[in-house]
Amino acid sequence: MTSTVAFLGPAGTFTEAALVAFENMGAVSDVTQLPVNSPSEAFQAVREGRADFACVAIENSVDGAVTTTFDAFTEGEALQVYQEVDLEVAFAIMVKKGISLDDVSTIATHPVAYQQVRGWLAENIPDVKFQPASSNGAAAELVARGEVDAAAAPERAAEIFDLDVVASSVADVQGATTRFVLVGAPGKPTPRTGTDRTSVVFTVPHEPGSLASILQEFAYRNLDMLRIESRPTRKKFGTYRFFVDLAGHIEDDPVAEALRALWLRTDDLRFIGSWPAAGQTGPQLDTTEFDNATAWVARVREGR
Amino acid sequence: MTSTVAFLGPAGTFTEAALVAFENMGAVSDVTQLPVNSPSEAFQAVREGRADFACVAIENSVDGAVTTTFDAFTEGEALQVYQEVDLEVAFAIMVKKGISLDDVSTIATHPVAYQQVRGWLAENIPDVKFQPASSNGAAAELVARGEVDAAAAPERAAEIFDLDVVASSVADVQGATTRFVLVGAPGKPTPRTGTDRTSVVFTVPHEPGSLASILQEFAYRNLDMLRIESRPTRKKFGTYRFFVDLAGHIEDDPVAEALRALWLRTDDLRFIGSWPAAGQTGPQLDTTEFDNATAWVARVREGR
Repeated sequence: MTSTVAFLGPAGTFTEAALVAFENMGAVSDVTQLPVNSPSEAFQAVREGRADFACVAIENSVDGAVTTTFDAFTEGEALQVYQEVDLEVAFAIMVKKGISLDDVSTIATHPVAYQQVRGWLAENIPDVKFQPASSNGAAAELVARGEVDAAAAPERAAEIFDLDVVASSVADVQGATTRFVLVGAPGKPTPRTGTDRTSVVFTVPHEPGSLASILQEFAYRNLDMLRIESRPTRKKFGTYRFFVDLAGHIEDDPVAEALRALWLRTDDLRFIGSWPAAGQTGPQLDTTEFDNATAWVARVREGR
Repeated sequence: MTSTVAFLGPAGTFTEAALVAFENMGAVSDVTQLPVNSPSEAFQAVREGRADFACVAIENSVDGAVTTTFDAFTEGEALQVYQEVDLEVAFAIMVKKGISLDDVSTIATHPVAYQQVRGWLAENIPDVKFQPASSNGAAAELVARGEVDAAAAPERAAEIFDLDVVASSVADVQGATTRFVLVGAPGKPTPRTGTDRTSVVFTVPHEPGSLASILQEFAYRNLDMLRIESRPTRKKFGTYRFFVDLAGHIEDDPVAEALRALWLRTDDLRFIGSWPAAGQTGPQLDTTEFDNATAWVARVREGR
């Protein structure tokens, strides 16, 4: 089955590497790549039917939530996560062929990447000037075009843009990891593996203790809340939308029960998906099962 | 009393405008400005005694938490917030004298600012190329130096860098607001006004329900949790530090009691401060009272 997948391009970004990982896991096959400029554009491509899936970064062990991805979930119609993958992120410093590190006075990379190599740069090329780029792949392209001297990007970008790697495995925090998710139209969740993650987003009535009492719905049922992320509603300063990840699958009774309780007690609840936690491999996704998805989610919520 | 204040420079940033607002509120006076490149550098200047205070953005109504500021709180010794101010954020589009909007093909601004004017740019100069800058003031400086055609920055930056304003009050979301805080060494909190904010950061033992049960300490006491922000610990992927804001002052009994409970139940608890919520004006801060601060906080925690 062929799939068109929108991702943060151009080729040579970590997001492209994640897309290849999703292919290797068998989540998608015969992929047509649709490079775009942001998570928001990737989600839009899915909402408009120009792509079957979006492959986007959602969280980094050093820099935290990729907030543009979180916000993109609530910018339009509901979308659903089907799979995740964790990639260890280390950078190669790349230059035009024949240039040495001593000749480098400007370096381009994505601002999130810059946060992860700042220490290395300060130590090795202390006077280098940082130029932010829209992606690491775009940074490598800037080097190829002669607009900056060097880029910090995945090693693969050097091959794509015919550059020399002058330093490898550059990362201030060793073992820094980024999590990527594969996002499609709402549908039947990826089957339960026993080591799953379920995610929802909601707002809460503004009264003292409302969030705490809602989170108790998880504690009562001994459910492990893996993360909570707050994002501004953009309506009133100081009002937030909460993204919560639970350990478990919506087909696990305590999870389904807790979501039913949330359905009653929160506002604007959206189901973001149940999928295998990183390291688990799910079966290939079948987009033909995506019909009637809303009904399916409602059925689970109502316990039928 | 003179104060040296570190802030995201150069002159002409919104952070500088916030610093002026803090002077007008009487929180600091006879200010010597110390422009730096990031919240982390501003905090470092306070930790090393090169500045009395740091003035930094902490949250935006459109873009959410300024994560670099949150992370800077736990990068070194404890620091404390003494005052906050909310500024409505609208941008002026500025160019070199004599240039018109039709001649603009590149525009520089801080990436967070870009998120807030993207819609306007798409409508008015659809083909313009965005160049990220380290601050809005720096973007205006790039225009003055002839490196880009236009900048989106506070109106004041046009005066400083002798530029023409071709559009005013540019903001995709009207009324977008940024909150700034004045941060110093730990000390006696700003006196209670009755409309205060208390902030702490902590990690929780990793067991199901631990965060929910800790947040119940606020709910029991009818305390309003104004926000919760999670940031990665950078130790193990999927482990977080939580920043929580409560309505109230550490001198309010329910707040002091809840913090004592947190002291027993959380790990790495740090008191970030009690200060007047935006709109309230506190008295001028006296840095001579900053001695023996840890003892003071411990005293409050222990109820003495």
